[in-house]
Amino acid sequence: MTFTNGYMGKWLKCDLTTGTLEDFEIPEELLRKYLGGKGIMTHMLYEHALKLEANGINLKEFDAFDAENPLLFATGPATGTRSPSSGRHHAMALKSPLTGSIGSGNTGGIWGAKLKFTGYDGIAFYGKSEKPVFLSIIDGKAELHDASKIWGLNSVEVTEKLKKKFDRSRAGVSCIGPAGENMVPIAVIMNEAHRAVGRTGMGAIMGSKKLKAMIVDGNAKPQAADPETFDAKVTEHRTKVKENGVTGEGLPAYGTGILVNIINENGLFPTNNWQEGFNPNAESISGETLAEEYLISKHACWGCPIACGRKSYATKGTYQIDKTEGPEFESMWALGNTTGINDMSAIIRSNHYADIFGMDPITLGSTIACAMELNEKGYIPKEDLQGIDLKFGNADAVVELTWMTAFKQGFGKTIGNGSLKLATKYGHPELSMSVKGLEMPAYDPRGAKGIGLNYATSNRGGCHVTGYTIAVEILGDVDRLSYEGKAELTKIFQDLTCVVNSTVNCLFLTFALGADEYAEILAPITGWDLTGDELMTIGDRIYTLERLIINKLGFAGEQDTLPKRILEEPLPGGASEGEIHNLEAIKKEYYDLRGWVDGVPTAEKLQELGL
Amino acid sequence: MTFTNGYMGKWLKCDLTTGTLEDFEIPEELLRKYLGGKGIMTHMLYEHALKLEANGINLKEFDAFDAENPLLFATGPATGTRSPSSGRHHAMALKSPLTGSIGSGNTGGIWGAKLKFTGYDGIAFYGKSEKPVFLSIIDGKAELHDASKIWGLNSVEVTEKLKKKFDRSRAGVSCIGPAGENMVPIAVIMNEAHRAVGRTGMGAIMGSKKLKAMIVDGNAKPQAADPETFDAKVTEHRTKVKENGVTGEGLPAYGTGILVNIINENGLFPTNNWQEGFNPNAESISGETLAEEYLISKHACWGCPIACGRKSYATKGTYQIDKTEGPEFESMWALGNTTGINDMSAIIRSNHYADIFGMDPITLGSTIACAMELNEKGYIPKEDLQGIDLKFGNADAVVELTWMTAFKQGFGKTIGNGSLKLATKYGHPELSMSVKGLEMPAYDPRGAKGIGLNYATSNRGGCHVTGYTIAVEILGDVDRLSYEGKAELTKIFQDLTCVVNSTVNCLFLTFALGADEYAEILAPITGWDLTGDELMTIGDRIYTLERLIINKLGFAGEQDTLPKRILEEPLPGGASEGEIHNLEAIKKEYYDLRGWVDGVPTAEKLQELGL
Repeated sequence: MTFTNGYMGKWLKCDLTTGTLEDFEIPEELLRKYLGGKGIMTHMLYEHALKLEANGINLKEFDAFDAENPLLFATGPATGTRSPSSGRHHAMALKSPLTGSIGSGNTGGIWGAKLKFTGYDGIAFYGKSEKPVFLSIIDGKAELHDASKIWGLNSVEVTEKLKKKFDRSRAGVSCIGPAGENMVPIAVIMNEAHRAVGRTGMGAIMGSKKLKAMIVDGNAKPQAADPETFDAKVTEHRTKVKENGVTGEGLPAYGTGILVNIINENGLFPTNNWQEGFNPNAESISGETLAEEYLISKHACWGCPIACGRKSYATKGTYQIDKTEGPEFESMWALGNTTGINDMSAIIRSNHYADIFGMDPITLGSTIACAMELNEKGYIPKEDLQGIDLKFGNADAVVELTWMTAFKQGFGKTIGNGSLKLATKYGHPELSMSVKGLEMPAYDPRGAKGIGLNYATSNRGGCHVTGYTIAVEILGDVDRLSYEGKAELTKIFQDLTCVVNSTVNCLFLTFALGADEYAEILAPITGWDLTGDELMTIGDRIYTLERLIINKLGFAGEQDTLPKRILEEPLPGGASEGEIHNLEAIKKEYYDLRGWVDGVPTAEKLQELGL
Repeated sequence: MTFTNGYMGKWLKCDLTTGTLEDFEIPEELLRKYLGGKGIMTHMLYEHALKLEANGINLKEFDAFDAENPLLFATGPATGTRSPSSGRHHAMALKSPLTGSIGSGNTGGIWGAKLKFTGYDGIAFYGKSEKPVFLSIIDGKAELHDASKIWGLNSVEVTEKLKKKFDRSRAGVSCIGPAGENMVPIAVIMNEAHRAVGRTGMGAIMGSKKLKAMIVDGNAKPQAADPETFDAKVTEHRTKVKENGVTGEGLPAYGTGILVNIINENGLFPTNNWQEGFNPNAESISGETLAEEYLISKHACWGCPIACGRKSYATKGTYQIDKTEGPEFESMWALGNTTGINDMSAIIRSNHYADIFGMDPITLGSTIACAMELNEKGYIPKEDLQGIDLKFGNADAVVELTWMTAFKQGFGKTIGNGSLKLATKYGHPELSMSVKGLEMPAYDPRGAKGIGLNYATSNRGGCHVTGYTIAVEILGDVDRLSYEGKAELTKIFQDLTCVVNSTVNCLFLTFALGADEYAEILAPITGWDLTGDELMTIGDRIYTLERLIINKLGFAGEQDTLPKRILEEPLPGGASEGEIHNLEAIKKEYYDLRGWVDGVPTAEKLQELGL
């Protein structure tokens, strides 16, 4: 190892079937090839997929709740250092129970840094426990414990209990809520009670393994290989973050909710299950309204100069809560705009439940919105709804369905399977606004062509944070309605994001920092001689390797698409009125840039990337 | 055995720890002494208590969730015959997780008759299963099955699934809902999806044993020893039931909800946690309103000429449901009147949830009402409520707390422990309107002195159906506000009810039939030479033996009392204005009649009863 702190590359392997724990090392040449975080896990999952196939397992039919589906948590070289926004971690599984594609998610908070401080870079869970367990890693010592006393508790309760039990008020706690325990396919893994590995149902996999929580704490702080250069770059980068309009002003002032009015004014704010792209009442569910009427304080993840998090409350209106976190932009949209609800206090409440029960608010809200459209169009037999008056704007229905879903009751069982299975069940799969079974987030591709290509080609499904072209299509000066250059733009964003998720930092840094800056700060950390170009190649390598995995899971060019509504129905009003998304205009160009044919990497490309 | 059908007295013993099933016989002399149903189970529990004590177990500290707490289900000699209302069964446990006193409850439906038709009179569960199981007894063959696929389902779903699985659309299904699985101390055992062993938390005991359900069906119909006399008496009794004003008119026309206006007009309808006894808006939550606006059809239990059950719906208002059952009078009160809610559709919804999740609506509503008073008086820290705006009249809060309680979330965990533990936690136990930890039902003893003595001396706690003196104090011509003769009246009602719960019939029959009629119909069934007096002695014996058990559990004269509010606060308005309940005026007289001293039976009395 070249790392001066001596532990970079040390992982914990936990076999939940047998309850055994053992350390293993990641060779440096692999880290150089994949950095860490998402990169190294993608490699591990690919190797695991090959092993399963060698054992005669058909990965297309492989059950996401099979004991052989690994659940991995990783930090990266930047994690826990003084480089900005380095408290995050990334989690992955071979298969998502929601989509059938890869399971993957990135989360903020402090847990990543705290894991690093234990002396471990990552944790790999295999197998399934018979009884509920939780893992502790305190000062380098890992132990499995009986979790029967915390099974059933929500994320806030588990976090408080475990910190108290270990008398570690600053420990990182990652856990599942009741939804994960109940293996609801839209369940998330929560850390710091309100941060989430938020998509592709990772919480349900954790629940299937009967793993309730992980508490991590320690003092083994990582040291840079070249501390002087590192410190200088940290100061330089923090200044750049502070000076950038988005990371220095917009996000700190209003959190991610600042996007509500911006996206709405551009006419790509999906309303009532994407039937429209503009909501005349969006102001009432915006970041500005949150700041004026519901804000307790701003809140930063570990080592983050941006502090986009919000601590909030709602002591007026039907739904009242004294203290919670969020809602983020995506929750304001999914639990508000696309379900037709313009009441911030209702959003705060359902978002709070999504957090403490542990569910993905994007998929939850989107699936409820899809059900609302199906119901308003008469496609759902009334008896299936078990009393829920399911129509756009009914905030009571959203809150109640949140309960129903987390606890797998009545119609909530259908909601918990996500919009694609819901809409398919009722004969109208086209009303699921999803890609590869993952619900698209709050940017209508009809109003920003690059993000549409990104959704279509994202390995984990309809996802914005795989390649957030909105950063330049809406927040920058790239023409959002043009198709020109969008293939290249999408590839660049996707590759750079792979780097960010492998270092592991926050995607928001990329408003202020590019690949070259990433290289110049990773070099003094790792002692490697890195360039921005090399990092982009690493990103391409990770993305392509991930693509190989999803090819094995049954996803290729045919699944690189967008919902019919996006491809065929022009937006009826707002600033993007009349627009559809002509995906075919740029999909081939994208594949060519990637070195893929019909969604499958070519042998040449694999060789070029050293795969 | 003297029974012509040859199977009377055959029981199934199920050891859930080992998964073994075996038959055992109850000797005829014991049946003659205790009849069946509640009587024979009280005997079994007493013997069990002696055995535990012999093993050095302190029953006062004994945990209701201990594997050694038996769970018994019994029919009686009348069950499954053509005698009116004979589909019921009774269930008991040595200790209630809610109260610490005896666990006991009686339920309607068809399950009792169907159990009888399998060839079994009763089932005794001992031990605890490791994994969820359910029991089937089909045509005399008993089997335990893995219940992992039905664990988590609600009562309606379990009932439908099991009937389908066994292709027995007319089978009886008894089960627990999520609340029982979660061992919520106010959980009930449901049968026919909407009938409940409704008090003392029997569902939580079933959950602690991981016993999800019991499906029973068969064709072994019981034959009377003297069919001709029996048939003649059946015809005679059915005529009497039809001709009685309550059982022939009031209950069939409006269900138990007919009592709302009657009890309210008499000023003993507990309102807002018993702060008042009259609600000017009670009409809106009455049986008449139910019949006019929410009724689908009337519904009878097995072999019942009364048909007081209601199938209902609510397709207007905030809460909508297409098809459910109830609410009964007690739900209208507990989920409506005492929580300040005058919206029948809200009551229908929370009652529906109580049914399908499996909770006692009396204790649920009463505990929420108690929490409302505690909160309005400023005794509950706001953070404990986790966002619930807990005030009288907030129907949303009741519905949400119903979820929270069933799934042991947040403040629901406190509600699920019942009002006494709730009120004690917040420093005001006097605001729990309970006796021996069991919440009193919808008749304020300040307005009917007999029912107060019955509440105070009921072995299972604040219970009306232990000795329903309301039948004569409100529905008959006994002066409700006088104390004279109330001690004797209470004893008679309690003893006769023991007979009814042992035969097992419906308490409502006693509006039309007395002890002599019971004797004249039991005699031709059993072949025994029975008189009304002998039956009343049997009732006395059962009640006294049950008292011996609760003495062992730590309950005696000091616990035979009423809440301070009843003893000291005059009713502020309505037709019972100014009344308190002077329990001490009649308690000693009652003990003397019983042959008890300070709540404990004397040796002479025990000898007299052959105990």
